Amino acid sequence: MPVLERSFFEALDRADPLGGFRARFDLPGDRVFLNGNSLGAPPASTLERLRTVVGRNWRDDMNSAWWKHGWLDLPRTVGDRVGGLVGAAPGQVVVGESTSVNLFKLLCGALGGGTRRTVLTDSGNFPSDLYVADGVVSHVRPDARIRRVGASEILDALDDDVAVVMLSHVDYRTAEILPMQEINERAHAAGALTLWDLSHSAGVVPLALDADGTDLAVGCGYKYLNGGPGAPGYMYVAARLLPGFRQPITGWLGHADPFAFEPEYRPAPDVTRLTTGCPPLLSLVALDEGVALTAEADPRLVREKSSALTGRLVELAAERLARFSVEVLSPVEPDRRGGHVALRHPEAERLTRDLAADGFAAEFRSPELIRMGLSPLFNRYVDVWDTVTALERLLGAGPRVPAREGATGEPARGGGGRR
Amino acid sequence: MPVLERSFFEALDRADPLGGFRARFDLPGDRVFLNGNSLGAPPASTLERLRTVVGRNWRDDMNSAWWKHGWLDLPRTVGDRVGGLVGAAPGQVVVGESTSVNLFKLLCGALGGGTRRTVLTDSGNFPSDLYVADGVVSHVRPDARIRRVGASEILDALDDDVAVVMLSHVDYRTAEILPMQEINERAHAAGALTLWDLSHSAGVVPLALDADGTDLAVGCGYKYLNGGPGAPGYMYVAARLLPGFRQPITGWLGHADPFAFEPEYRPAPDVTRLTTGCPPLLSLVALDEGVALTAEADPRLVREKSSALTGRLVELAAERLARFSVEVLSPVEPDRRGGHVALRHPEAERLTRDLAADGFAAEFRSPELIRMGLSPLFNRYVDVWDTVTALERLLGAGPRVPAREGATGEPARGGGGRR
Repeated sequence: MPVLERSFFEALDRADPLGGFRARFDLPGDRVFLNGNSLGAPPASTLERLRTVVGRNWRDDMNSAWWKHGWLDLPRTVGDRVGGLVGAAPGQVVVGESTSVNLFKLLCGALGGGTRRTVLTDSGNFPSDLYVADGVVSHVRPDARIRRVGASEILDALDDDVAVVMLSHVDYRTAEILPMQEINERAHAAGALTLWDLSHSAGVVPLALDADGTDLAVGCGYKYLNGGPGAPGYMYVAARLLPGFRQPITGWLGHADPFAFEPEYRPAPDVTRLTTGCPPLLSLVALDEGVALTAEADPRLVREKSSALTGRLVELAAERLARFSVEVLSPVEPDRRGGHVALRHPEAERLTRDLAADGFAAEFRSPELIRMGLSPLFNRYVDVWDTVTALERLLGAGPRVPAREGATGEPARGGGGRR
Repeated sequence: MPVLERSFFEALDRADPLGGFRARFDLPGDRVFLNGNSLGAPPASTLERLRTVVGRNWRDDMNSAWWKHGWLDLPRTVGDRVGGLVGAAPGQVVVGESTSVNLFKLLCGALGGGTRRTVLTDSGNFPSDLYVADGVVSHVRPDARIRRVGASEILDALDDDVAVVMLSHVDYRTAEILPMQEINERAHAAGALTLWDLSHSAGVVPLALDADGTDLAVGCGYKYLNGGPGAPGYMYVAARLLPGFRQPITGWLGHADPFAFEPEYRPAPDVTRLTTGCPPLLSLVALDEGVALTAEADPRLVREKSSALTGRLVELAAERLARFSVEVLSPVEPDRRGGHVALRHPEAERLTRDLAADGFAAEFRSPELIRMGLSPLFNRYVDVWDTVTALERLLGAGPRVPAREGATGEPARGGGGRR
């Protein structure tokens, strides 16, 4: 393998067909953000939109702004925009409340009143998704059960008691992509529904919910969709399931005619039936800005750049960091790897802190992972080079720590370490 | 009764000890908003706060802003601020998702796994609250039932099957205040819990949740709290109930240690256990601004001015509008009347539209109500005078319509009507 230079990464940036997107974000120049997979960056347009919504629409029109400025339609219109990013035809995606609340609704709906009682999931699924499933069983369907198996054992665990297979498309730690179409087909053959969490894939990994036969999905708006802190999440219910789909949190904005104030609940005929109460409008318009910007980019180019960024990071880590006991935990095969890279090191927590002090914002995941997200719309190839260089220096400048040693929380020996 | 003049109302405004608050809002000068009970006005500080949060905190600190700027604590800190407004000691109120989702959680928790199976409520309760209760019974507790009776029959309907009495403190149409303390006492004597919706009272009607022995409450943030469109709502669980209180939507931010990513859910020891997912931060900081501004005002003065504003409206309506078949539907006794006034007229829908065209934003509630909210922090006494004057002109200029006639949706006869 040739020894690479920074200039090579600079050249990649100059040739990057998505390079122009970086200027569409409001970013400080002196830091490298490797956590856009936790919270995307602010689109430059977001603050302007908020100025309009607060300083004009809300101010001038007060409550009537909900109609006059289409606010009441936003859960559906932003939902359709998200749908465009995840391969869903219009009318199947709607923005709701937090991802966990949305998941609760869809999981309850998927279990319905049927006779099958097992929710099959990955034991390594995002913990909040597991908590939500446990809550559904504890409080809503005490006759049901959660079965947690390793991701690789999901297909073998399908049996005739499985009502729904609940999975994250991309693993929040390793970035491993699960084969959505294959799992959908096998689940359907076993008579089960599928419910996918797209939080770590939407906006960075290609998705074809309709074509892949996905039944249900949720996802969050604040990662690669750049929707802002705590942006509301979205729900997808395949059109073929929508007419019979019921969710338990039946509030007025999911009613067929919310402002008729009818005494009885009638679900809206369309995807609006998944919603409940007033959407948090300021967060929702920020999501709209983030999704609109993300949707401008050619998804093929986004995936190409994402694979290239994470591939270069994997490659440089192997070349320059392996000797410091840094392991790449993410899949090496590009087709199996999502938009981030997990590096394992016994001193991951300290290294993440020290990287932050040097201006590289990555994330620590206990006990030994440094998680680095690379957002194709604002990260550059030189970010990868500079990050590895910084990490190499931190590892080389401090005391050399053999694998596993130092993970006990004891101070590093020798006094050469930072902090 | 003396015939009043506009100058008298101007004098009331000059003497108003809360008069200075109006300048703290961003309001257009050419309109009168009588719908602050639907959506409060924007505090002048809200846009500045959003500028800081988006253009500095989010931009500069990305995901670490959740810790660095106390964002993760905001559901509790804003909750405590709301607590100060509703008579709740710290640690019992937390901001959650929409009011309807919050109500779902508390109602499920109130029903718990107990043997009592009746949810007792007012048949005139806000429809979304009724829908939520129906959803709980349909999807979560099919052995339970909702019993709807008239508000005046609630106490008589208490029996030993009632698990929870679910009521709105102030009626969304008539503004009638229900006697919270008395109902709490009677419910407790009957072995039931109480769950109050404070949406139409918090910020305008005195509340003493702790002193009155309230068990559970929810409320919305976008009415008299001026938290912005779709501001998240809040939940109150009395401290004595909190340790044993369970709600069904168990997401990571309600976990005792969310970022430990433990495989099993453990509810937070404090009020945070009521929360679920990431709060919609931009909407949440706007709520913080609204609540902080509202909390600056002396609640005694707020109630005094509110009673005076609605009292003057009731008085002027009787004096100048009764001859046009306008009836005051809200209680005449100040102690029983919340922060808005409902006027009944057969052509309420047309009149509301025409008032809006003249710059008076009130709200129509089918079939015959004009609902006028008066927010003591930004409405003026002259607003009351001017509104009644405008309505009188609209009624006098159009064809005279006897009571009940014209309510069929037929065009008004005579051709003199507007639109």
